[in-house]
Amino acid sequence: MQNKLNELKDRLREVYDLNSAAAVLSWDQATYMPSGGAAARGRQMAVLATLAQEKFTDPAIGKLLDALQSYAESQSYDSDDAALIRKARRDYEKKIKVPTKWVTKFSAHTAEIYQAWTEARPANNFKGVADLLKKTLDFSREYANFFPDYEHIADPLIDVLDPGMKASDIQRVFEDLRQQLVPVVKAITEQEMADDSPLRAGYAGSEQIAFGEGIARDFGFDFSRGRQDLSPHPFTTNFSIGDVRITTRIKENDLSDALFSTLHEAGHALYEQGIDPALEGTPLAGGTSAGVHESQSRTWENLVGRSRGFWQHYFPRLQERFPKQLSQVSLEAFYRAINKVSRSLIRTDADEVTYNLHVMLRFNLELQLLEGKLEIKDLPEAWHSRYQADLGVHAPGDVDGVLQDVHWYSGVIGGVFQGYTLGNIMSALFYDSALAAHPDLPEQIAQGKFDTLHNWLKSNLYRHGSKFTPNELVERISGGPLRIEPYIKYLKTKYGELYRL
Amino acid sequence: MQNKLNELKDRLREVYDLNSAAAVLSWDQATYMPSGGAAARGRQMAVLATLAQEKFTDPAIGKLLDALQSYAESQSYDSDDAALIRKARRDYEKKIKVPTKWVTKFSAHTAEIYQAWTEARPANNFKGVADLLKKTLDFSREYANFFPDYEHIADPLIDVLDPGMKASDIQRVFEDLRQQLVPVVKAITEQEMADDSPLRAGYAGSEQIAFGEGIARDFGFDFSRGRQDLSPHPFTTNFSIGDVRITTRIKENDLSDALFSTLHEAGHALYEQGIDPALEGTPLAGGTSAGVHESQSRTWENLVGRSRGFWQHYFPRLQERFPKQLSQVSLEAFYRAINKVSRSLIRTDADEVTYNLHVMLRFNLELQLLEGKLEIKDLPEAWHSRYQADLGVHAPGDVDGVLQDVHWYSGVIGGVFQGYTLGNIMSALFYDSALAAHPDLPEQIAQGKFDTLHNWLKSNLYRHGSKFTPNELVERISGGPLRIEPYIKYLKTKYGELYRL
Repeated sequence: MQNKLNELKDRLREVYDLNSAAAVLSWDQATYMPSGGAAARGRQMAVLATLAQEKFTDPAIGKLLDALQSYAESQSYDSDDAALIRKARRDYEKKIKVPTKWVTKFSAHTAEIYQAWTEARPANNFKGVADLLKKTLDFSREYANFFPDYEHIADPLIDVLDPGMKASDIQRVFEDLRQQLVPVVKAITEQEMADDSPLRAGYAGSEQIAFGEGIARDFGFDFSRGRQDLSPHPFTTNFSIGDVRITTRIKENDLSDALFSTLHEAGHALYEQGIDPALEGTPLAGGTSAGVHESQSRTWENLVGRSRGFWQHYFPRLQERFPKQLSQVSLEAFYRAINKVSRSLIRTDADEVTYNLHVMLRFNLELQLLEGKLEIKDLPEAWHSRYQADLGVHAPGDVDGVLQDVHWYSGVIGGVFQGYTLGNIMSALFYDSALAAHPDLPEQIAQGKFDTLHNWLKSNLYRHGSKFTPNELVERISGGPLRIEPYIKYLKTKYGELYRL
Repeated sequence: MQNKLNELKDRLREVYDLNSAAAVLSWDQATYMPSGGAAARGRQMAVLATLAQEKFTDPAIGKLLDALQSYAESQSYDSDDAALIRKARRDYEKKIKVPTKWVTKFSAHTAEIYQAWTEARPANNFKGVADLLKKTLDFSREYANFFPDYEHIADPLIDVLDPGMKASDIQRVFEDLRQQLVPVVKAITEQEMADDSPLRAGYAGSEQIAFGEGIARDFGFDFSRGRQDLSPHPFTTNFSIGDVRITTRIKENDLSDALFSTLHEAGHALYEQGIDPALEGTPLAGGTSAGVHESQSRTWENLVGRSRGFWQHYFPRLQERFPKQLSQVSLEAFYRAINKVSRSLIRTDADEVTYNLHVMLRFNLELQLLEGKLEIKDLPEAWHSRYQADLGVHAPGDVDGVLQDVHWYSGVIGGVFQGYTLGNIMSALFYDSALAAHPDLPEQIAQGKFDTLHNWLKSNLYRHGSKFTPNELVERISGGPLRIEPYIKYLKTKYGELYRL
């Protein structure tokens, strides 16, 4: 049995290492690669992806998993070995249901539509990609139909990034959240808007980076097992538990861009760096889902990094670093600036309160498209009318409408947005549990101390990697199913006080 | 036939891409990787190396090469297809003669001795690695004996980096060179030593980098198809013809270190960037040998970059950048400083005149070891006595003696040093041919113009990649076999004038 387990681990480690090598190439492409390297880089990544797919779907892995099934069942559910075999089987069953030919065809299509999108977007020309997007929708349905037992056609697509989550559950949760959020947004945006001009006073890039990295280090980001670089779009990646990298970007006229990107990505990275080293090289050595990952980026960016207590500690330090720009600004004015709420068109620029409305309307449009209730040709209008209804804004063109996000133009339609809002909901749920165990967390944060929170998260969440599904983690940590109440309470308390609701 | 050729190219491209992916990982390890990433990086590189080896030694490639042999012979010797099949067959025949088991055992040994060397060197403890080095010698002999038709046991080892070169030829050339050099070194070092204190006046790193990159750009290094980063040991690597990267390192108290490293690596990079794009993704898309590669790094570093004419153009610019350090220094003093000749112990710090003595004595020691005329236990003493004889210096310990270079502690003994001096010899030989075609090269260089030289080298050397062996290139370019006369003449002219010999 031990021999078979070792052989399984060896084979899975090879796949893990190939995927990690591909991740290095992808990181390099986004950070340092000169433009002349693009063509070969595409080839190199395709070779690695193909090999990783071949190695993972090798029938020998299926046989090993079969042979190890009774061993896995004889072990405690929480044990590393049981979790490894469980997760590997789940991933394996998913992968072998999707024909390699389909993967190849879909990859080629993705490259084509992505290229078309990079041209259609600046030209505000949705028609230029509509036919290709229709194909994407066809591909998305085909993918779902490789798993014909689904309850909702979106479920197999959601399962890719948020395993075990179902469209019906998410819909119910999101509808609750939406009904609670819309009146809050209305009440806030009827008041005078916060003044965020102090954030636009001109901030030297190198100083911004130094300040942000200092906070990441205070959070517990280990720079001997990670680093930060610049890229056009901030992201987190990892090549092992010992090498977790984040990126940010600098806008000299928007202090919040690099700063909160760094705190956000540092949250993702703390999760990856906090995984039990015993899981290194296995399919368990990574965060368990997009939603749970986002819960951690949002915890450190928002629950911690946009709290008043946090800035009681850091604002004097920020003033010291930027005296010219900030010495005349009060803590309260700064706190209001970084928490400004407004009805906006762009998801990635949205504040905490309106952000989920952006996400949920995309999720609903995905469901309608997959269900056949909405056609691609009617998508731009559906987008505009939903923005009008939920946010009271209307984009002047599709460039800030349906052409806004890269997601549908670089992958499937379905299952790519829900994680953002699931993450927000879970962030408050998990934080509530941490607070129950350590009621003095807010005082610690106000002193720039994060050890207690970081250790609690490591011990209850991070160290497990992918041993448990998102729903299992929610149950283990909060003692029940996913609930929006802590998140609603967090938003209402914070913004109720800020805006005297 | 075309189908078979395409299949061969597809298979070889996959190997090329795997090797390129490994090169990205290796570059990252030397430049940006945090220390925590080391363990996983070792695994990732091993997986890629194994896959590249498996894919290249696949018997299907042998069959394709057999099937294409008559086609190759029907094509002109210079054609891309004929060269591709010729080179692929040569590489394939070499690879399949070495058992995979031997490669695995040797890799493990290399990792062990390298680790031991990193400890033995600072401890000046040759005994701590002597037994392992004896094993390296055994491995080196075993490797050679996979090719039992050799004329000299070093030939198969030399053939790895300098294909087609033979120990006997190299020995003859080196002995000539040595006999001519020793009296020159003696005559120079009896005179007053040049003063290089202006180079040690303290130079800001970022300014050093900007100046060096400016020259690399002037040479013709294309930054849209390459870049420069920092690493502990400067090197050049490439992931395609469109992505060629160099590294340098900064010493604030030695202006020459970063500067001449950049010019040296830029020379290597010009070669790789200058390869015909039609060869991309094939085994021909790389420099043909260590020696020919070194000829180009030395051309741009020394023949161009340490010439008086070059600094007539650049010294005023350097003074402008560093007025505090250099405004009181004359061009002549600076020129003498960067061409200071001295009897020294360390190969990598050696000047143009003495450098080859360092290399040739290592080459000779390698031959004696392989021939069984010298034992590992007697190597330190042989090293010291040869340094005494050739350079008149005696290292106080083995740390600056036999433990100095990494080569024998990270690979085979044999075939790893000759390229440095072959490169020097070829640099002058090729430059002479360029000069015959364009007698005004020196005047152009003195105006900071390098187009003519760069284009001549591209058209006569770079574009061919690995289509021709080093000996073929020497014949094509100089019209005869390898000769040391141009190199001797170059040294005697330059240093005769500097030192009034």
